[in-house]
Amino acid sequence: MPRVVVDVMPKPEILDPQGKAVHGALPRLGFSGVTDVRQGKRFELELDGEITDEVLAEVEKMAETLLSNPVIENYTVRVEAPSDEVGA
Amino acid sequence: MPRVVVDVMPKPEILDPQGKAVHGALPRLGFSGVTDVRQGKRFELELDGEITDEVLAEVEKMAETLLSNPVIENYTVRVEAPSDEVGA
Repeated sequence: MPRVVVDVMPKPEILDPQGKAVHGALPRLGFSGVTDVRQGKRFELELDGEITDEVLAEVEKMAETLLSNPVIENYTVRVEAPSDEVGA
Repeated sequence: MPRVVVDVMPKPEILDPQGKAVHGALPRLGFSGVTDVRQGKRFELELDGEITDEVLAEVEKMAETLLSNPVIENYTVRVEAPSDEVGA
C-alpha cells in the first residue's frame, strides 16, 4: 500500500517549548554535542490506490487544513516506501 | 550545521488514538482515499561538529532513552541535509 508521510515542524521563528525541554534534558542525561532540538509531528497516511499528482495535491490540502497550523508550522509531503521502518 | 532527524512512531500493534482522530476527521472535511493514519513525533537535532558513526550511536542512545518509549514506539535515526524544509 502506498504511504505518504507528512512532516509538520514549528516554523524557525516560533518558540518550541517541547524541543527546548528535550534540549535541556540531554546534558542532564550525559549527552553533549547537540546545539538545538526542534520537535514536530510526523503523520503516516496509508492511501487507497496509486499515488498520482492529484492525490498528492489532495494530501497537501489535508496537511494545510487539518494536519498543520500554517500560521506557526511548516509541513512537507513526501512519498515513502512502505517497509522502511526500522529501529528498536 | 549537520542535522540528524529522529522519527518516533507508535508500534504497529499499539493503538494510536491521535492517528484515529485524524483519520476520522478526514471524511468529514471532504477527503477520501486514506485508509489509515498513524501519528508520531519528529525530532530535528542540530549537532556540533561532524557526524561520525560514534555520534550516530550517541543519537541512537538519546532516541532510546529520552525521545522514545521503546515499549510502545519505534524510532529511526537518519542524517538529513539541513536545507530540505519546504512547505507553506
